[in-house]
Amino acid sequence: MEFLVDSKPAMRLALVIEYDGIQYHGFQVQAMVPTIQGEVEHALWRLTGERIRIIGASRTDAGVHATGQVVGFWTRSTLLPQTFVTGLNHYLPEDIIVREALSVDGLDIRRSALSREYRYTILNRPTPSPLLRQRAYFITRPLNVEDMNRASQFLVGRHDFASFAAPMNNKPRSTVRTVSKAEVQRHGALVIFDMVANSFLPQQVRRTVGALVNVGVGKISVGAFGEMVNSKKSGSAAPTAPPYGLCLMKVNYRDALFWGKDEDL
Amino acid sequence: MEFLVDSKPAMRLALVIEYDGIQYHGFQVQAMVPTIQGEVEHALWRLTGERIRIIGASRTDAGVHATGQVVGFWTRSTLLPQTFVTGLNHYLPEDIIVREALSVDGLDIRRSALSREYRYTILNRPTPSPLLRQRAYFITRPLNVEDMNRASQFLVGRHDFASFAAPMNNKPRSTVRTVSKAEVQRHGALVIFDMVANSFLPQQVRRTVGALVNVGVGKISVGAFGEMVNSKKSGSAAPTAPPYGLCLMKVNYRDALFWGKDEDL
Repeated sequence: MEFLVDSKPAMRLALVIEYDGIQYHGFQVQAMVPTIQGEVEHALWRLTGERIRIIGASRTDAGVHATGQVVGFWTRSTLLPQTFVTGLNHYLPEDIIVREALSVDGLDIRRSALSREYRYTILNRPTPSPLLRQRAYFITRPLNVEDMNRASQFLVGRHDFASFAAPMNNKPRSTVRTVSKAEVQRHGALVIFDMVANSFLPQQVRRTVGALVNVGVGKISVGAFGEMVNSKKSGSAAPTAPPYGLCLMKVNYRDALFWGKDEDL
Repeated sequence: MEFLVDSKPAMRLALVIEYDGIQYHGFQVQAMVPTIQGEVEHALWRLTGERIRIIGASRTDAGVHATGQVVGFWTRSTLLPQTFVTGLNHYLPEDIIVREALSVDGLDIRRSALSREYRYTILNRPTPSPLLRQRAYFITRPLNVEDMNRASQFLVGRHDFASFAAPMNNKPRSTVRTVSKAEVQRHGALVIFDMVANSFLPQQVRRTVGALVNVGVGKISVGAFGEMVNSKKSGSAAPTAPPYGLCLMKVNYRDALFWGKDEDL
């Protein structure tokens, strides 16, 4: 593939995208399998004729959804941002949609992001739901949501989240992150976990949910969850909740660039 | 098929079922195409060995969903109701689920139903949603929800709803129905229409939504909608909104037999 190498003036664009992650091997491009990045880059090529590499604000896992993923790229196309929305949506499959396109003048999509907001949805009732399959993690045993919410407060603040990280076999990197919000709420049969942090470790939300569910069914205590946060023992938070309950809701930047999280989605 | 013809004691069971209607040609059984009734009857045969004919409280159209459809049937099986739940869910495809089974002692599922509750979901924003496709009717033009809600109040009460009926080419039947609730509310990008009536005419909710959307975009006035309700001109309410935005939420009986509508689904 040829990338932008010459000196023609290029503009920096950001896209806000929504997707149903079920059919994809995650955000990040891989050979031979469908990925969100791969589909968006292919649609950009169809629209502009350019081989464009995009950067995503958050690398969602296989099966994880997004209502507000943000991607950035350089282009020499002279199309208007709004034409990127309609044009890309013409070429994209129906499980990926561009909600917005903005000229962002050199913004670093990953490093300039102040925080990421994730939501994890659990369906907690006796029978599964055909209408929420591949959208929510189905748990039969009644969850004590009050305990789960109390436990989740141990996450708030600046901590070394090694316990909640997937085992990393490459060179050690910092596992310190700053969580600004963690909350578990019940809405009827749905149990919703919202978590906001400056950035996340691989599988961090799903491992956090796995441990919170253990609190919810009484398998571990609220205090034991707190100890887990402080133990910094790599990968001790388990099990990893399934990906299809997880959704990247929003990425926040200093300027309110985007029309933002849609609470109802 | 052989039905119950002998004199063995049989019990009357009711099932509360939820389904994603997209893959089905409606509730009612038809030759050669998949239907909800056909799938449930097939699962009953697998479970009990009986060829059982079921009755549904509301005949949902092709593509329409349900979280609380109720069906009734006679069986000579001695299985416990709870075993019907787990057993049928074992044989049913994943887009149909039995939520509850109850012994109902001769209850007429259709005639004893006091009311049916339907919900229609519209997604009203600039771009479609991959996560709500086949769940909500996508409308780009901003809807005036206040006007839609005002118009919907003309529906409440006992009226001849001929204007909202699909053309009926068989012998004329009464088009008088009693609506106990009609309400349009906005939740972010979602516009939700709830309607409760003793029973509904074919396509009544979808035609009502089509006309309410015309109010919402200013194509017809609130007053003109009221005149449509009173005009009794068969099929004048148009267009018919797509089926996949519609969901049968609940069927009400004199006794609170079922654990009822789940507000979050």
